[in-house]
Amino acid sequence: MQFANIITLTTDFGLEDAYVGQVKGAVLKSNLSVSIIDLCHSIPAHDVLSAAVTIRTSYTYFPTGTIHLIIVDPGVGSQRRILAAASENHMFIAPDNGVLSLLFQDNIIQTVYRVENTSLFPSEISSTFHARDIMAPVAGAMAGGMPLDKVGPKAEIRSCVQLNLPEPIVSTNKVEGQVLHIDRFGNIRTNINITAADLTEDLIRFSGVRIKGHQVDTISSTYSDSPTGSLVALIDSAGYLEIAVNKGSAAELTKCRIGTPLMLLLERK
Amino acid sequence: MQFANIITLTTDFGLEDAYVGQVKGAVLKSNLSVSIIDLCHSIPAHDVLSAAVTIRTSYTYFPTGTIHLIIVDPGVGSQRRILAAASENHMFIAPDNGVLSLLFQDNIIQTVYRVENTSLFPSEISSTFHARDIMAPVAGAMAGGMPLDKVGPKAEIRSCVQLNLPEPIVSTNKVEGQVLHIDRFGNIRTNINITAADLTEDLIRFSGVRIKGHQVDTISSTYSDSPTGSLVALIDSAGYLEIAVNKGSAAELTKCRIGTPLMLLLERK
Amino acid sequence: MQFANIITLTTDFGLEDAYVGQVKGAVLKSNLSVSIIDLCHSIPAHDVLSAAVTIRTSYTYFPTGTIHLIIVDPGVGSQRRILAAASENHMFIAPDNGVLSLLFQDNIIQTVYRVENTSLFPSEISSTFHARDIMAPVAGAMAGGMPLDKVGPKAEIRSCVQLNLPEPIVSTNKVEGQVLHIDRFGNIRTNINITAADLTEDLIRFSGVRIKGHQVDTISSTYSDSPTGSLVALIDSAGYLEIAVNKGSAAELTKCRIGTPLMLLLERK
Repeated sequence: MQFANIITLTTDFGLEDAYVGQVKGAVLKSNLSVSIIDLCHSIPAHDVLSAAVTIRTSYTYFPTGTIHLIIVDPGVGSQRRILAAASENHMFIAPDNGVLSLLFQDNIIQTVYRVENTSLFPSEISSTFHARDIMAPVAGAMAGGMPLDKVGPKAEIRSCVQLNLPEPIVSTNKVEGQVLHIDRFGNIRTNINITAADLTEDLIRFSGVRIKGHQVDTISSTYSDSPTGSLVALIDSAGYLEIAVNKGSAAELTKCRIGTPLMLLLERK
Repeated sequence: MQFANIITLTTDFGLEDAYVGQVKGAVLKSNLSVSIIDLCHSIPAHDVLSAAVTIRTSYTYFPTGTIHLIIVDPGVGSQRRILAAASENHMFIAPDNGVLSLLFQDNIIQTVYRVENTSLFPSEISSTFHARDIMAPVAGAMAGGMPLDKVGPKAEIRSCVQLNLPEPIVSTNKVEGQVLHIDRFGNIRTNINITAADLTEDLIRFSGVRIKGHQVDTISSTYSDSPTGSLVALIDSAGYLEIAVNKGSAAELTKCRIGTPLMLLLERK
Repeated sequence: MQFANIITLTTDFGLEDAYVGQVKGAVLKSNLSVSIIDLCHSIPAHDVLSAAVTIRTSYTYFPTGTIHLIIVDPGVGSQRRILAAASENHMFIAPDNGVLSLLFQDNIIQTVYRVENTSLFPSEISSTFHARDIMAPVAGAMAGGMPLDKVGPKAEIRSCVQLNLPEPIVSTNKVEGQVLHIDRFGNIRTNINITAADLTEDLIRFSGVRIKGHQVDTISSTYSDSPTGSLVALIDSAGYLEIAVNKGSAAELTKCRIGTPLMLLLERK
C-alpha cells in the first residue's frame, strides 16, 4: 500500500469543545507533516451505527493509503479493544464496538490487529480520552509509514464486534424500508439499496414510493427533474433510495423522522 | 499567476453530514499536497446570493494563486453549466447560477471557461453531487498548476448568470437600505456601502442611523467607542454600514432580521 | 525553541460566518506552508475566561514550537494591547484582556512582548478585525521562525491583565465548587482540582459528591465503571472533578447549568 500521509477523523465529539483540536494536536505530535481532514464530527453521541454508515459510504472518496480514525467510543477505558484494520487501499483505527461493522460485512477489511504496543503510547494516558492518548499517536505513526503489524498482535475478523443495520423487507411487489438519515437539506436517506439496473431490468419495474401518505411515481436522476417544491425519488450516489424535494426539504414536507417506514412499490411482469 | 496550492471551500453543506469531508477527499485524490481551507459551510441552503456576498468580501484575504471552490448548487445534475473563472490573482470554480455575480459586476473576473473536459472527471459521476465528482478534482488539478484553458471551452462573461443584491435607495438627505446579514455576535451588516471619505467630505455629513425605532447619532471607528450595551454605527472592513452593540447583540437589541429596513440620515450643506 | 510551523486557533467567532476563514487566509498570506489547526471556535461570545481555560487545558497536546492564536477580543480597536508570549516550548498571541491569565498564574509564560512592529502589518487595518489584520500575519511570521523579539518591545508579565477563575472553597470535610463547563455529551466539568493521589492518601478519603440533590459515592476511573444511565464521578484528564453518566448526559440527569454549586465530601482520619 502507498502512503498518502492523510488522516481522516470521524467522531461524535461535535465542535463545541476542544476535543477534536486536542486529537489533532496529538496526531501532529507523532507526525508533524500529516494532513488531517475532518470527515464528520456530528455523529450523534454514542451512535456507533451512524459512524459505521458514515465511514462505509465515505472512505472510497479519499486517496489510496489514507488512514481513517473513527471515534465513537462510549466504552472508553473499559476492556473493549482498539483495532487497526486494513483494506486493500485504506487503513482504519477504531474501538472494537461495531463502528467497522459494515466494512467487515462487505468484505472490505482484509486484516485486523489489536492496538496494544504500549511503546507507541505517551507516558500519561487518561482513562476517558483514548482517542487523543492512544489512537491519535498510533494513527500519526501509521500515516507516516509504520507497518500495521507494529501496533500489536493480529486479531481474527470473526472475533470483532459486529452490528447490523435495520434490513429492508423484500416481497413480491414491494420493499419495506425506513428512514436512515436526514441531511441538512432535508433529503431523506433510506435503508433500501437498489441499483438503477434493478429497476430497468425486464422483470421488475418501479411503480412508486410511499412515505407518510405521500406518493412519488417515478425514479428521477436528479433533483431538478421535479418541479420546485415537489417530491422526487432517486438513487443516491451510494446506491440507496433517496427522497428529496427540488429546492426544498423532503423531511419537512413529509414530516418524517429517522425510523419512519417507507415503501418501494414494484411491478413484476 | 503564481500558484499557492491552496483551495478554499464555500458551501451550503453545513457540517452535520460528511459531504464537506467527501469533497476534501476528492480534492486530495487529484492533488495530495494541496491545502484545503474552509471559508464557510453555513451558507443558508440554496442561498446563491449569500454565497456571492461571502466570496466577494473574503477572497482578497487569501494568497495570490488561491483557488476558490463555491458550491451552492440547487440545479445540480440539470443543464446548468460549471464555470472556472480567473481574476488577476485568484481562480474560482462554481456552478453558473449567480454565485460569481458580484465578482462579475465589480469587474474582478477577467476570463471564464466552461468545465467540460471529461478527461478530468472520475469514471463514476453521481447526478446529485457534482461538487465532489466534478468540481473537486478539477479544483485539485488547477491548484497544482493545470492551466485554466484545459478545463473546457472559453465562455463569454455576459452569457453567465448574474443576480442583483437589493440596492439601497439614495435621496438628498437619506439612504434607505436593509439588513443583509446578522453575524454570530448579533452585528448587523447592511447593504449601504459608504466610505469614511464620503462622510467626512464637505458637502455631506452623517446625521444618524435609524433602525426599528432606534437611532444612532455618530459614526464610530470601533465597538468600544460606545458604552457597553449601547448601539454603535460604523463602517465595516468591506466598506458597508454596520450596526453593533459594544459587548452585546445589536440584532437582539433592535429585534431586526434579514431584510429589516434601515435609514442613513445625511445632511447636505 | 524548535519551530513546528503549526498555528492553532481558539476564537469566539463560531462557524456561521466567514471570519475564521478570513483569518486563515491572512495567516497563509504571510506563511504559505503553515498548518492551521482549529482548536475551538465555540467559545461563548466575549467570554475571555472560557478561552483562558480552553488554551490552558489544551496547549500541551500540541507539538513543541506550536504558535497558539487566541482571539476573544471585545475590546478590538481600543487601546488594549496585543501580546506575544512564550513558554518553554510554545508561543501565544492574544489581546491583553485576560485570555492568558491561567498561563501566567501557573508560571507557564516566561516572556511577553507587545505586538507593535507595524512593519509586520498589512497596509490596511480595519478597526474591528485585528485578528485578521494584525494577529494573523504576525502569527504566520512567527510560525515561520521569526524571533519573538521582532514583534515589538518587551512587556512585564505583572503589567498584563489577569482574571481569576471562581475558586473552590476548601474546608475540613468538604470542598464546595461549581460547574465550569458542560460538554456535548452532557459531561460536567467542575472547578474542583483534585488529584487521584490526594484521594488515596491516608489522611483524606473521598466520601461522595453532591449536586442538585444527587449523590455519587465513589470515584471511578472511567465512565463504564458505572451502570448505563447512572451518575459517575471521576478525575478528568486535566485533574478536575468531573461528573458524567455512562452512555448518557449528566447535565440532563441533574438539571445543572454553568455555575451550579456542587460539593465534594471528604473524610479525614
